[in-house]
Amino acid sequence: MYSDFGIPRELSDLQKRRSQYQPELPPCLQGTTVCVEFGDATTATDSSDAHTISRSFPHSYGQPLAHFVRATAKVPDAQIIIEHPEIRVGAVFCGRQSPGGHNVIWGLHNALRIHNPNSTLLGFLGGSEGLFAQKTLEVTDDILATYKNQGGYDMLGRTKDQIRTAEQVNAALTACRDLKLDGLVIIGGVTSNTYAAQLAETFAKVKCPTKVVGVPVSLNGDLKNQFVETNVGFDTVCKVNSQLISNVCTDAFSAEKVILGEEVAASKLSLFELTKQLCDAVQARAEQDKYHGVFLLPEGLIESIPEVYALLQEIHGLLRQGVAVDGISSQLSPWASALFDFLPPFIRKQLLLHPESDDSAQLSQIETERLLAHLVEKEMIKRFKEGTYKGKKFSAVCHFFGYQTRGSLPSKFDCDYAYVLGYICYHILATGLNGYMATVTNMKNPLNKWRCGAAPITAMMTVKHYYGHGPGVLSVGKPAVHPATVDLKGKAYKQLRQNATNFLMDDVYRNPGPLQFDGPGAEAKAVTLCIEDQDYMGRIKALQEYLDKVRTMVKLGCSEDVLKAALSAMAAATNILSTMTENTPY
Amino acid sequence: MYSDFGIPRELSDLQKRRSQYQPELPPCLQGTTVCVEFGDATTATDSSDAHTISRSFPHSYGQPLAHFVRATAKVPDAQIIIEHPEIRVGAVFCGRQSPGGHNVIWGLHNALRIHNPNSTLLGFLGGSEGLFAQKTLEVTDDILATYKNQGGYDMLGRTKDQIRTAEQVNAALTACRDLKLDGLVIIGGVTSNTYAAQLAETFAKVKCPTKVVGVPVSLNGDLKNQFVETNVGFDTVCKVNSQLISNVCTDAFSAEKVILGEEVAASKLSLFELTKQLCDAVQARAEQDKYHGVFLLPEGLIESIPEVYALLQEIHGLLRQGVAVDGISSQLSPWASALFDFLPPFIRKQLLLHPESDDSAQLSQIETERLLAHLVEKEMIKRFKEGTYKGKKFSAVCHFFGYQTRGSLPSKFDCDYAYVLGYICYHILATGLNGYMATVTNMKNPLNKWRCGAAPITAMMTVKHYYGHGPGVLSVGKPAVHPATVDLKGKAYKQLRQNATNFLMDDVYRNPGPLQFDGPGAEAKAVTLCIEDQDYMGRIKALQEYLDKVRTMVKLGCSEDVLKAALSAMAAATNILSTMTENTPY
Repeated sequence: MYSDFGIPRELSDLQKRRSQYQPELPPCLQGTTVCVEFGDATTATDSSDAHTISRSFPHSYGQPLAHFVRATAKVPDAQIIIEHPEIRVGAVFCGRQSPGGHNVIWGLHNALRIHNPNSTLLGFLGGSEGLFAQKTLEVTDDILATYKNQGGYDMLGRTKDQIRTAEQVNAALTACRDLKLDGLVIIGGVTSNTYAAQLAETFAKVKCPTKVVGVPVSLNGDLKNQFVETNVGFDTVCKVNSQLISNVCTDAFSAEKVILGEEVAASKLSLFELTKQLCDAVQARAEQDKYHGVFLLPEGLIESIPEVYALLQEIHGLLRQGVAVDGISSQLSPWASALFDFLPPFIRKQLLLHPESDDSAQLSQIETERLLAHLVEKEMIKRFKEGTYKGKKFSAVCHFFGYQTRGSLPSKFDCDYAYVLGYICYHILATGLNGYMATVTNMKNPLNKWRCGAAPITAMMTVKHYYGHGPGVLSVGKPAVHPATVDLKGKAYKQLRQNATNFLMDDVYRNPGPLQFDGPGAEAKAVTLCIEDQDYMGRIKALQEYLDKVRTMVKLGCSEDVLKAALSAMAAATNILSTMTENTPY
Repeated sequence: MYSDFGIPRELSDLQKRRSQYQPELPPCLQGTTVCVEFGDATTATDSSDAHTISRSFPHSYGQPLAHFVRATAKVPDAQIIIEHPEIRVGAVFCGRQSPGGHNVIWGLHNALRIHNPNSTLLGFLGGSEGLFAQKTLEVTDDILATYKNQGGYDMLGRTKDQIRTAEQVNAALTACRDLKLDGLVIIGGVTSNTYAAQLAETFAKVKCPTKVVGVPVSLNGDLKNQFVETNVGFDTVCKVNSQLISNVCTDAFSAEKVILGEEVAASKLSLFELTKQLCDAVQARAEQDKYHGVFLLPEGLIESIPEVYALLQEIHGLLRQGVAVDGISSQLSPWASALFDFLPPFIRKQLLLHPESDDSAQLSQIETERLLAHLVEKEMIKRFKEGTYKGKKFSAVCHFFGYQTRGSLPSKFDCDYAYVLGYICYHILATGLNGYMATVTNMKNPLNKWRCGAAPITAMMTVKHYYGHGPGVLSVGKPAVHPATVDLKGKAYKQLRQNATNFLMDDVYRNPGPLQFDGPGAEAKAVTLCIEDQDYMGRIKALQEYLDKVRTMVKLGCSEDVLKAALSAMAAATNILSTMTENTPY
């Protein structure tokens, strides 16, 4: 394991300036007295999963939502947290680094110290491996100095994000007991937060006093649900990728070249249909004398192409049976074999790579952008020979964006968001909650309107159903926080579709430019965050206020008519909701 | 040709703010009265080339340097340019786009208008093709509005940078005559400026009144000589690439992975030695438990590897003889064949690509970084099996940086530099100079210390000598402005070498962060610009001052001793210089 963790870094001038930036706190977290208000017990997003989840998490399922409000707020049932004993907290980075992660540690450290200067924050070195091995670094102001508002996870490091096997869970349990931790903060994406929930359940079951808290930090942007508006790191990644993509666009525009890249989009087309769509786009632009353009393709696109996915499943099946790589192609089913032969050699080679434990991990090895560039080129030559395309020769340049953005200096938004989440972690622990994720909502508005809270991780879980190998065999997966997919009914996607023709045919290449920390653009937020109406927690609260109002207006002594009207309205509401949720009692 | 040139662009907030930025002018260009001071006649950098160059450029060789100074400056022989008649100027982007190019047009436009509101600036649409076809756009304030301080060349567009054949030169001549141009400004790199000089020579010969001016705009950073300190675009490219490379470093540091990229470096090692060096670096770091690191490789590295270059020459020879691609490998010389068989299939395929007219152009198709990743991996496995390497398995991720940076918003420095160069172009034309390049020197100091001038392009030319196919046959190339290579005796390289061990073994990963326009980092300049002592023009001037001083101090009536001392000192100086330059009279 690398031993330089936590040593002061040499910073550039800009990094130094950034390290001086002090994020603010929303009003509800200011001062040392914070109130916690509990909502109703939570259930599962999909009520049909509730039974499975509750059985897997008997000790941590169904806990209520928590909102942190100002001590002066007039909330009837809120409870003021008065005692702030000295506590010991461990924090661990799980999974791929995401810009802003360091600020979670910073926010947590500050909150701990402000409430009790004797409290201790231990960072686990080298991710979950450091947790198992009990390798820690006590986080201090000195250590934090050169990591505040900086990218990477290098203050503590990380390894792969696995706290899964019985052995690993036991090692984590032993670490928390040995180190006498009151809290364990797990910083990561969907997988890491699923592990956090499992750990919380195990700890509750064996009566380990350590409370486990998850923090949504992932550059994928796929830890998103009714409680979580966005992940720490996503804003930065959007901004840096927009800069790079725009630069490529500006370049293409001046250079008249077609360039393939990657984007997050959703598609379930066949490989042939997809190729055809891309070719039609090239052709339509060529007819307007536009011999340049940029295609953005999502990294996981290959998974969405049904026949490629099926081919991969066949190949992996044969590999698992021990068939040698050379022998695979002769043992494929006729259609799979035909597709395999159709593909260019470099893709064939990539398809034959041994799958990792998780099939999807291996998919990132397949250069989807090169495959499509190859197929589009082939098809355009065919069209040219047939006389249906009369333009210039098609040629593509492929780019892969990923690593360049991951290590970026975090945006102002991500600095603020991460710091606030770290701060919330303290209050979750002070309240004694276990198996919760720190949440901030209403983030489309300025920081002084942000709402802080905590949601049980189990409430974000769903259960996947798989069709097994035999006919009619349906197997049920383990409950987990699954990656959010693009919401094809959402406002953001709608806006994308509305502009699709303009984006395709016009050269609307606005360049957001390099990430700025002051001035125009510095305060810009992701479109999805601003236009998707994600204030789920706010609406839950509004509903409760309605119910309270009805209760107040209709009480003993009210007129018969008012009572009748209320009854009829509530009966209707109940019926509609029963039908919608197909209430499965358990 | 694409028809949207010059239409207003939709700008992002940051782009809008940037478009409001007004570069300043150095004191010597402020106001409407500028003085021009001529230096001595210029010669060639290498005096042995002087004869060849003077024969190729009889009408434009040997012109003096020009310095633009304040009208109030007390320079004895300076000439004040008083008349500013209405003039017509054409401007053309040649070669690959470079951030800041638009500002040359803007600076030129402003200078033209300030000195005579009736003057006209015509932009040629689509580069040199637009020049030949006389496709123009009159540049106005309205058109410039959304292109000021922006990246790309999309206001006017560009095509390939060729004004070479007799047909092309004639088309350019006809265009300048038909459009009654007083000046033609060619914006580009080494090749474009060589064409500019040739055009100037032709125009002078046929008595075409159009004066040709070159402007050093190229992101390669290789138009650099005693008159040109840096190119427009290089500063931006350095900053954006530093951001991306640093992000990859930060990522590697957190992720513990070895990553291959590209850098500007110089090496003449064999492929095996290079592989060995890289492997030794991996091993040395592994011994310190550092299983991560970033290699930076320059794009043209493959050219510098002697045996790969020789193999390519053989392959191209066979291709030119009409040997089919399939038959090449069997006809290679034994050693070339051995190397060819040793290389991985994807590189073999890339080596067999038909060369373009210029051999070097095709080399960028060869993925040097992938080749080296492959070879290093193979060697590390071998070392592991032999027991000489005991660390973790080596794995590499390759990146190619290029397109992402070319379209960037230009840095403040490039905005200023390009604007000032555009302004200088006007004064070059107002002075009636032909075949000159606009120059700014002393740029390591703040803008108010910048010195503005013009240097004959022929003075930047060199002549290459090639060994021909027969023994002893030495052929002489055409005089040209050749790309500058890394100066292995220069201060910048020295500093790199001094830090080589630290860079290799320590994790000194300062991240300059995204390009900023205000605050820390915004005013940072490239290290090469600051530490290399490039004030050639300043030193030429200092020498002239010494000579003048000697003249003043030693005149009729001075003592015999003083005269003797002066004579002896000047004789010594003359002898030393004669020996150094091996004076070739002609």
